Amino acid sequence: MKFTHESLPQRVRFATGEAPAAVAAEIDELGARRVMVIAGEREAEIAARVTADVPVALRHDEVVMHVPVEVAERARERAAEAAVDALVCVGGGSTTGLAKAVALTTGLPIVAVPTTYAGSEATNVWGLTSGETKTTGIDARVLPRSVVYDATLLTTLPGEMTVASGLNALAHCVDAMWGPRVDPIDQVNAAEGIRGLAGGLPLVAADGASVEGIEQTLYGAYLAAVSFTSAGSGMHHKICHVLGGMFNLPHAQTHAVVLPHVLAFNAPNAPEAEARMAAAFGAPSAVAGLAELRTTLDAPKALQDYGMPEDGIAKAVAPIMAAIPDNNPTPVTEENLTALLTAAWAGEES
Amino acid sequence: MKFTHESLPQRVRFATGEAPAAVAAEIDELGARRVMVIAGEREAEIAARVTADVPVALRHDEVVMHVPVEVAERARERAAEAAVDALVCVGGGSTTGLAKAVALTTGLPIVAVPTTYAGSEATNVWGLTSGETKTTGIDARVLPRSVVYDATLLTTLPGEMTVASGLNALAHCVDAMWGPRVDPIDQVNAAEGIRGLAGGLPLVAADGASVEGIEQTLYGAYLAAVSFTSAGSGMHHKICHVLGGMFNLPHAQTHAVVLPHVLAFNAPNAPEAEARMAAAFGAPSAVAGLAELRTTLDAPKALQDYGMPEDGIAKAVAPIMAAIPDNNPTPVTEENLTALLTAAWAGEES
Repeated sequence: MKFTHESLPQRVRFATGEAPAAVAAEIDELGARRVMVIAGEREAEIAARVTADVPVALRHDEVVMHVPVEVAERARERAAEAAVDALVCVGGGSTTGLAKAVALTTGLPIVAVPTTYAGSEATNVWGLTSGETKTTGIDARVLPRSVVYDATLLTTLPGEMTVASGLNALAHCVDAMWGPRVDPIDQVNAAEGIRGLAGGLPLVAADGASVEGIEQTLYGAYLAAVSFTSAGSGMHHKICHVLGGMFNLPHAQTHAVVLPHVLAFNAPNAPEAEARMAAAFGAPSAVAGLAELRTTLDAPKALQDYGMPEDGIAKAVAPIMAAIPDNNPTPVTEENLTALLTAAWAGEES
Repeated sequence: MKFTHESLPQRVRFATGEAPAAVAAEIDELGARRVMVIAGEREAEIAARVTADVPVALRHDEVVMHVPVEVAERARERAAEAAVDALVCVGGGSTTGLAKAVALTTGLPIVAVPTTYAGSEATNVWGLTSGETKTTGIDARVLPRSVVYDATLLTTLPGEMTVASGLNALAHCVDAMWGPRVDPIDQVNAAEGIRGLAGGLPLVAADGASVEGIEQTLYGAYLAAVSFTSAGSGMHHKICHVLGGMFNLPHAQTHAVVLPHVLAFNAPNAPEAEARMAAAFGAPSAVAGLAELRTTLDAPKALQDYGMPEDGIAKAVAPIMAAIPDNNPTPVTEENLTALLTAAWAGEES
């Protein structure tokens, strides 16, 4: 038993229907008096409601995907001008990302109120883009001090989006099981994430406003982020990254298609992870559990449906092989990887 | 789903046979140059070995159970005189406790190297005694920055002591399941702790030098501490605390006897916790899993064997009832509590 596990300092509040009081309590705990609220225009109304009991000094709504450097700079300048002492961000990954960009240079504490299942709120990873170039890094200052999850804020999110986003979180849990830095604690968190997602997603697919379904999905997405950040990205994410970049495939669908193939590929050589996942799915095996969930959710099946050319399989093999971590449970060869990609391309049963 | 969960910042290294390198790496990470090593005389040799690659400015061996204030004061003075910049403690709960006492007033970072299964290294709780009075508190400064677990340091611990200590950790896991602040994340950690302890203790009982058994037990004891600190003490610990105080019963045996009775009492009304525990024991039910483990370990059975008088049952009921948390799964009455205590006193099957 040799591993190193680092627990990051963060308080999470699951506070269904009580975000305003929970956010106020967190701001109070920080002793903050001049709060900068970061929320895009679409979240303006939710943000106003959620921060009603907070001493707001500044509302900032310039939120742009992938956090362009100049957008981050403007937010930092406004934070300095208004002499704010804490940040509250209300929104998805881009909104949390902007708050992190401000925290990175100012050290201001963040209270995050997620309105999607991105999971960025549970990590110490920041990202900024300059033109086409994305820079990412790890810094303790960008980890939100606290996160307030309120399922009632997500009831208007389209069910389809929830399912796509939830399957993405599921891929984080599964891939964490054999990530390059994985340890047993990561596996425990990832399995509990699977449990939440497998319980929540069918409810949300049936009714996008299911508060119970959203709660379970949020809980699963939180643990997906915690475990994946700690374990690092494994075979599944390496495959999706290469395919996405080479063939400009849609992110969520690529993940949804590839995941069962990677699971079937690795499960036979990862018996402990397999047992944890099977138990989390409540299924006789991890593969069976994921298959059942995918059927319930009518998940995407074939990469050919999303624009990947058949001759792309051969082209992708070498760069994927170069990227897969050494600790992957099943040794990867040109042959078995080609077979995996072919099955994912054609939409064959994994 | 309403809960608040706080993750404490700590790095744990499971580094069997590699404590010297792991401790050196942690000291390096802290940038420390003048280390104070705290270890009792019995641990002097282990401590010297473990800190061989560390810049030691001071070795301190005055370690006393329950950390008397005057002992803590002397350690603090010596730390100041030697201008140390980090603490390494090598030992059990009293040793870690002394390091915490020094950290409490100085803010010095602690690297803990446990040589028992006390679990204190994973909590932010400190304790000091002055005469008969024990004062405890919670402070972020006393949480060790990192913990190095090396199973080879515990191979000379008598198997009997490991079992007593391990059953104590098991009681933390079980009682965390319904502690007053319990949340699902605590339950996940507690269940994983049970898994480690149920796997490790039989190995250690059979062979006190079983490195695999010690590793599993250490892992379980670590998660026991993490989950119990977060969830708070439940019905089991309230009972043991009252009985121990009233009748001066031995700590470990009292816990070992009472635990199966509390589990049987609460399990029917805590189905989710029960399922998590059963899975962790790898048994059809939590009660059956604990019973099997107790048989394997030949655990103590009856409080009457440890000096509790039969008429003590009636005397203990009222103070126990007053102490049990409101969220206990099975409502406690004078009748059912009397029946529970009678069974534990007599050593009846739970």
